[in-house]
Amino acid sequence: MEFTFLGTSAGTPTRARNVTALALSPSGHKSWYLVDCGEATQHQLLRVHYSVMQLRAIFITHIHGDHTFGLPGLLASASMLGRTEPLDIVAPVQTQRFITTALDNSDSSLSYPLNFIDSEAEDFVWKDKHLEVKNVALSHRVPCRAYVFTEQNLERQLLQDKLKKDGIEPGPSWGELQKGHEVTLEDGRILSSDEYTQVPRVARRLIVAGDNDDPELLANACKHSHVLVHEATYTQDVADRVGPWPQHSSAEQVARFAQQMQVPHLILTHFSSRYQLGGSGTPNISQLADEARQHYHGQLFLARDLDRYRLEKDLSLTCLNSVSNSPHKTSSVTPGGDHD
Amino acid sequence: MEFTFLGTSAGTPTRARNVTALALSPSGHKSWYLVDCGEATQHQLLRVHYSVMQLRAIFITHIHGDHTFGLPGLLASASMLGRTEPLDIVAPVQTQRFITTALDNSDSSLSYPLNFIDSEAEDFVWKDKHLEVKNVALSHRVPCRAYVFTEQNLERQLLQDKLKKDGIEPGPSWGELQKGHEVTLEDGRILSSDEYTQVPRVARRLIVAGDNDDPELLANACKHSHVLVHEATYTQDVADRVGPWPQHSSAEQVARFAQQMQVPHLILTHFSSRYQLGGSGTPNISQLADEARQHYHGQLFLARDLDRYRLEKDLSLTCLNSVSNSPHKTSSVTPGGDHD
Repeated sequence: MEFTFLGTSAGTPTRARNVTALALSPSGHKSWYLVDCGEATQHQLLRVHYSVMQLRAIFITHIHGDHTFGLPGLLASASMLGRTEPLDIVAPVQTQRFITTALDNSDSSLSYPLNFIDSEAEDFVWKDKHLEVKNVALSHRVPCRAYVFTEQNLERQLLQDKLKKDGIEPGPSWGELQKGHEVTLEDGRILSSDEYTQVPRVARRLIVAGDNDDPELLANACKHSHVLVHEATYTQDVADRVGPWPQHSSAEQVARFAQQMQVPHLILTHFSSRYQLGGSGTPNISQLADEARQHYHGQLFLARDLDRYRLEKDLSLTCLNSVSNSPHKTSSVTPGGDHD
Repeated sequence: MEFTFLGTSAGTPTRARNVTALALSPSGHKSWYLVDCGEATQHQLLRVHYSVMQLRAIFITHIHGDHTFGLPGLLASASMLGRTEPLDIVAPVQTQRFITTALDNSDSSLSYPLNFIDSEAEDFVWKDKHLEVKNVALSHRVPCRAYVFTEQNLERQLLQDKLKKDGIEPGPSWGELQKGHEVTLEDGRILSSDEYTQVPRVARRLIVAGDNDDPELLANACKHSHVLVHEATYTQDVADRVGPWPQHSSAEQVARFAQQMQVPHLILTHFSSRYQLGGSGTPNISQLADEARQHYHGQLFLARDLDRYRLEKDLSLTCLNSVSNSPHKTSSVTPGGDHD
């Protein structure tokens, strides 16, 4: 599983950070998924290897503009490129209304169908051959969701001893079982894949949360997840000064929660534009990292625009800096930091 | 009068060019005006000296997304910065509907009022102390306008000989007359400013046209204008191949028209993303310049993102490259070109 941050700033863009979006793809596949779509997400895509022609679905966490205003432009550009594949848009009903009105009032007719799916439906679940996606309700000024992405259709290993013991000779039926299919033998026996194969590893699971002032809501989801991507809009002192109204989390708050849940990998994002990236200016993004590191002892990253991550099959997480981001030499997230 | 191109690409952004927007300001004043607002216009503003706090009015040429999809984000960001000044938005009714729906469905309430003004109203005219703005209907797939900006309240020179001859002594009344005000003397005489002052130069006039396949529609407006900013989406050969449907102009078509009208300064913009900027790749932006230069013998520029222009009081036009654009060393618009 790979994912790239397309925007890591809260509310408004800065010269170094765009507003929120994240691209996710199963390793080795061209099809991909977008979580949130702040303004200029299509511009960020010009700097990475994801093409709107292969975009499979968009998942919107909540209706705020810094997570949605890039939708009309991205959809219209995909149409100008001649996309014909249907596109699923998982979003609150208001976002559907925004998209429809934007397209209707800009003389835009798309070359492909949109399938709107209500993200706030009870028992929401979305699936394709690569991923199963569920969501968790968060606490924010408007209804907001975290999306939980679980790898699907893991590679199977044949239980060869058992196959031989049951008199099932090597042949096409072995291949079918390995693909997860049921097989009917000539003698009428029906073999289930689960009985004759095993999955030798755990399915990778990633949580991408929207804006949220109560990380505890993710406790259940975190129990079997390997990466948590969560907002940390402020350091605790700024959060205290700003007060509870914006309903965002501090770095301390998320770090404490992740530590308590023993989340192996934590990536903070959605930083207030007041925090400067690099240099010695204050307030500085390094303060968020320092604060989180005091309370969380797993692998911590602070997201930067265009940074690409890979969650390996062995559940390790690495940050592979994108070419476009090459001015920053290390995969370290905090300037001068030692997060990993 | 100064203006900066914030986007010069047609339809979709490229890595070097954003979609359409242009910032215009009276020299020496902080207040400014925006013509069109493609997606990521607020991002481009982070690279220039125009602040949304001083934005006086937005003029939208037509409803297409590459000219309008930046509006919700720009308006919301101005609100997050705490703007309180009302903002005029001159636009087709559909664009007003788009903005309202975008704000309503993203939980955005602005900290300042919007005044919507219908750009397609008959006898449209907009004025403030710096500028008078009229518009001209163009020919495109949807109703589209060119905006004609005429400098207002030019500095006046006192006709001192005439004042003295009429027995009007130097004093506060001279100052009032020079400001363009009417003055009532103690002896009851009423003096009009026009009678005792003169404006020693012509008002600068700039046309910023939207998408258009019939430059002739601007013939009247061009008679007393000093700069024409017009789209040239294609070279003529590409326009012939594409056919008339998109209703855009070729470089040849606009150049021939500008030559015929003896427009002193012509700036082409809104280039199809197929044209590469710089290098030797084809099709190349230099082909548009070469084609235009064959038919137009005034001062020709091809707009680049973030290039800043100044129309002087003597009606000369200069391209002052912005700092952000410094990788391009000359003010020349076409790589290696000799447009001026």
